[in-house]
This record gives sequence, structure tokens and C-alpha cells, in this order.
Amino acid sequence: MDDQAAVLAANREFYRAFAAADLAGMDAVWANAASVTCVHPGWDALSGRGQVMESWRAILLGPAPPPIRCDGETAYVHGDTAYVICHEVIERNRLVAINLFARLGGAWKMVHHQASPMAAPQAPRGPAAPQRLH
Amino acid sequence: MDDQAAVLAANREFYRAFAAADLAGMDAVWANAASVTCVHPGWDALSGRGQVMESWRAILLGPAPPPIRCDGETAYVHGDTAYVICHEVIERNRLVAINLFARLGGAWKMVHHQASPMAAPQAPRGPAAPQRLH
Repeated sequence: MDDQAAVLAANREFYRAFAAADLAGMDAVWANAASVTCVHPGWDALSGRGQVMESWRAILLGPAPPPIRCDGETAYVHGDTAYVICHEVIERNRLVAINLFARLGGAWKMVHHQASPMAAPQAPRGPAAPQRLH
Repeated sequence: MDDQAAVLAANREFYRAFAAADLAGMDAVWANAASVTCVHPGWDALSGRGQVMESWRAILLGPAPPPIRCDGETAYVHGDTAYVICHEVIERNRLVAINLFARLGGAWKMVHHQASPMAAPQAPRGPAAPQRLH
């Protein structure tokens, strides 16, 4: 399996664990390193494995873990670091995510996840709408 | 200058060019590579140097380039790739951004930028509020 395929497989495993509310699987996706970071939609950044995994515990073991799926994945490999840009589909919401992986001990492990809400499909797209913030 | 300081300097230059609406400066911040990507707040992902720089042209040369500043930066270095997590402050809005850099020709160049709106400060924080999306 080449690097790009291996990174996409790691990304699929992230969403499998997410959709299945598989906390042990989610734990295994993430790098076993103190410096991991995570930005859930609308949240401030979480820093450190303890904070990040605590957030997944709250989300996955909460009353309504989200029915999430991923599509449109593209992987970008830069040596021993790689990232995937993809869409997350949660019911009628669509987000755009970056999932950043590092090659650690021969396996691609997540070091950062960030999902950003996209403007509603009926809203105008392009520079006009989001320019208020950027 | 060590890697972490150099990455933070590249990140500062990104926000300097952004706040100054310096399109040439912004162009120089980004890697001269086809595979760069960018997610502005509320937008879908932009892919490729052409699309990404066109978006900066629209934003920086538009009628009201945003009065942006950055704070709370932390840099994470993984070999020849590095990322900065920071806050963007635009008037009363606060976003959380990841800026991803690759070491190319001895310089740290941006390969991905993604800014995510944070929930309004008066809204409840933590798992309860954003759980609808994650």
C-alpha cells in the first residue's frame, strides 16, 4: 500500500470509529503523543492527549453520538507527515475537515483533527458570504 | 533561530500580510506548489495554488479587508512539516486556526490554512453545545 492509500485508510478508520462510537478504536487512531490537538466545530482548540481523548469520550459515549460519514477525501503526503481534506456529512449538515497524520513507528497516526462548518447550501457561496470573517 | 521560532515567524508574516492587505506578501508566504489548500470560515475547501491565491486576491483587495490579528500561537514541529494553532481576532469575532507549513528550500512555506469560527463567548462551552455537529 503506498503512502497515500495508507493515509486514506487511517482516515477511514477514524470515521469508522467515530460513527461506531468505538472509543478504543478512536484511541488507537490518535498518536500516543502529548502534543496532539483537536478543534471540534464551534469549540476552542483542545491540546494534549488527555483533553483530546476526554472530548471523544464525551462525544462518543454521550446520549446521541452523531451519525457521521465522510466523503470527497484527498490525501496530501509531505514526507512523514500527511493530511486529508474531506467532507463530513452529519444528517443535513456538511463540514470540511482536515485530519493531520504523522508516520510513527511505521503507522500513520492522527496528530490533529479540525472540522469547520460550511455555510448552508442555500446560502450564497464564494467570497461574498464569508467575507465578514475573512 | 530554531524550527519553532522560524515557524512562528512565518505565521506572523502570514497575519502581517493579511492585516496589511499585502497580496504580494501573502503570495510569498504560500508554498509555490500546486497542492496547497485553504478553508476560509464557512467556505468549502479550496485546492490548488490558483484557487487559493484567487481567494486571497478577493479578500485582500475587496472593499473591506478584515482587521485581523492573531494571538495565542503554539507551533508543533514534525520534521520538515509544522503547524501553528492560534486564535484569530476579527473585531468581536474569535476563530481558531491551523496553519500548516512545509520546509521547502530551507524556508517554512504555508501549505494549508483553515480558520474555524468559535461559538460566541456567551454561549455555553464544552461538549454540550457543539454536540449537534460532533
